[in-house]
Amino acid sequence: MERIYFDNAATTSLDPVVLDAMLPYMTEKFGNPSSIYSYGRESRLGIENARKSVAKTLNAHPGEIFFTSGGTESSNTAINAAVKDLGCKHIISSPIEHHATLHTVEYLHHHDGVALSFVKILPSGHIDMDHLRELLQGSKEKCLVTLMHANNEIGNLLDLHAVGTLCKEFDAIFHSDTVQTVGHYPFDLRNTPVHFITGAGHKFHGPKGVGILYINENVKITPFIQGGSQERNMRAGTENLYGIIGFAKALELATEHCEEHRQYINDLRQYMAAELEKNIPGVAFNGDLHGRSLYTVLNVSFPKSEKSEMILFNLDINGICASGGSACTSGANAGSHVIRAINSNPNQIAVRFSFSKNNTRTEIDKVITKLKELI
Amino acid sequence: MERIYFDNAATTSLDPVVLDAMLPYMTEKFGNPSSIYSYGRESRLGIENARKSVAKTLNAHPGEIFFTSGGTESSNTAINAAVKDLGCKHIISSPIEHHATLHTVEYLHHHDGVALSFVKILPSGHIDMDHLRELLQGSKEKCLVTLMHANNEIGNLLDLHAVGTLCKEFDAIFHSDTVQTVGHYPFDLRNTPVHFITGAGHKFHGPKGVGILYINENVKITPFIQGGSQERNMRAGTENLYGIIGFAKALELATEHCEEHRQYINDLRQYMAAELEKNIPGVAFNGDLHGRSLYTVLNVSFPKSEKSEMILFNLDINGICASGGSACTSGANAGSHVIRAINSNPNQIAVRFSFSKNNTRTEIDKVITKLKELI
Repeated sequence: MERIYFDNAATTSLDPVVLDAMLPYMTEKFGNPSSIYSYGRESRLGIENARKSVAKTLNAHPGEIFFTSGGTESSNTAINAAVKDLGCKHIISSPIEHHATLHTVEYLHHHDGVALSFVKILPSGHIDMDHLRELLQGSKEKCLVTLMHANNEIGNLLDLHAVGTLCKEFDAIFHSDTVQTVGHYPFDLRNTPVHFITGAGHKFHGPKGVGILYINENVKITPFIQGGSQERNMRAGTENLYGIIGFAKALELATEHCEEHRQYINDLRQYMAAELEKNIPGVAFNGDLHGRSLYTVLNVSFPKSEKSEMILFNLDINGICASGGSACTSGANAGSHVIRAINSNPNQIAVRFSFSKNNTRTEIDKVITKLKELI
Repeated sequence: MERIYFDNAATTSLDPVVLDAMLPYMTEKFGNPSSIYSYGRESRLGIENARKSVAKTLNAHPGEIFFTSGGTESSNTAINAAVKDLGCKHIISSPIEHHATLHTVEYLHHHDGVALSFVKILPSGHIDMDHLRELLQGSKEKCLVTLMHANNEIGNLLDLHAVGTLCKEFDAIFHSDTVQTVGHYPFDLRNTPVHFITGAGHKFHGPKGVGILYINENVKITPFIQGGSQERNMRAGTENLYGIIGFAKALELATEHCEEHRQYINDLRQYMAAELEKNIPGVAFNGDLHGRSLYTVLNVSFPKSEKSEMILFNLDINGICASGGSACTSGANAGSHVIRAINSNPNQIAVRFSFSKNNTRTEIDKVITKLKELI
């Protein structure tokens, strides 16, 4: 059966060009990058060139880019460091963050006595900037603000500059989970008031198991994972060599074709939204579809019915991959905390469709036809 | 130039059979293992079959095997959990542990007030079991004992059963860094008194960037990396799918040929030791070469001279890869803490040669000839 993959916010396929870049490091170039002889030096060179490439793309210094095992480790590192090393005793976050952020801040709140506030979410899914200002203004402690750049379920985009500028005003540390936007939007970190951002290779046709943490050169932290002196003493453990090579290659490709893909994918998304409105009565969209929104994600609410409750199951039977929310929480089967936070209507079933450069209008047409049958 | 790779304790080449097992998951089988549709389920199946295979090899329950980003993360997880979740307020370790252990226990000692003791090391490089008993006996707090199974620099093997039995007697938690022995020796974890062991794929011809943590079913801990519900809520972050597949395949191959490789590699090592003694005046060996010792590692001391001080550099120029100690610390350039702990002779230069199934006697002959020229 032909499969239609509309869950690119969960993970993307590895680009064959990226795999080709990784393969030499999975065969002859196998040296430990920390070893001083030839095999080690060529691995080291591969990693440092990858770092330079990533830094250039994000307009950061290579010394600000650290490779990790993924977005989750990166966020854990940043948030823990803000508390442990940077004196933050109050964390301001939001109820619609990814669990990599939420579970980490909740742990620090419950076990280390760090104060925790959640900024209000507007019905559009955007954060309430006035409330954020109030929280910062009212805080007696140094704050960490941790807010994601694009929400992985509904796609809402944060104004990084506006939040960063506000954080600066109140001398707060600012971490943004940018896992859904690195590789999808241009970044200009030298001119962005943010202390930490994160990225995960597999969200933009790179490999799984590798990510980055950007640490602004003005903040000094200690490692989260301790041990060897890898990553300039900031992240211990033998480097995921091919993962790092693949991350940089994928980011390079994504950046090269950024505008073109963005246009193409956004067109697909808007086309699907229009077709859904035309064909499925009572359909609604979660988030700010026509406003500040990630171009890859379309979060749809179907009217609740016996049929719509089985929709993901039946789409799967028909070879169509979509999700109820974050893949990271689908094992938990507890529904989406994001949808709950912005949409209190219990008579709706939310489905996330998310697109990549590999999807087509023909696929959308097929999915719409199938949805008409299934709903 | 032909290269001779004698640094297999730093990392090993990826077995082409392992790469072949990984490739389908780097191409068509790219689904997020947490996704509930077909693409996700085939990834999940791959991971759970990998877990079962690893568990079977180590004679553990699949529920006791957790995939991580490598040995360092695994050791960080175990040691932190022992303190955070299991009530250990006193850590007993040794001065010759890997930095993944040493830096973690030192951090907990300095920042969280955990008591820290180091067990004495005998001139052979083995730990002083009487001293370990004294330390356990004298402790008023619940202890974590963290001692590595095989030392990565000198190869000395710990008696896991003896240490585990002693720990049991004093109700201590026992973690062993088994990064150098998983994939090199048979394990029978259901009959071994240990709470945590670790493994890293790249030490036995598997991939870099992936490891395991074995957590005995009788201990319950909370995650080190927090977020999504991956690894049964124990290790958050999208799984390094191909890494996990590769880890299991490499362990399967290593186990299948364990005895045969062990014999072959040990013969190489003993041959090199004998040839060195025959050809290089004043040569000595660090560790317990003819006793309880990892069969892959030969740690040699050469008499200090202008020539021997340049030995690694000159071996490299001649295409021969060997190391001064752990690759993880070679960036630090501070000499080996292991050699310092067991050998106080400042007039010796230590070089570690470490072997794999891919090495040959012909290579050893070439290295001996070169060493005769260089020393």
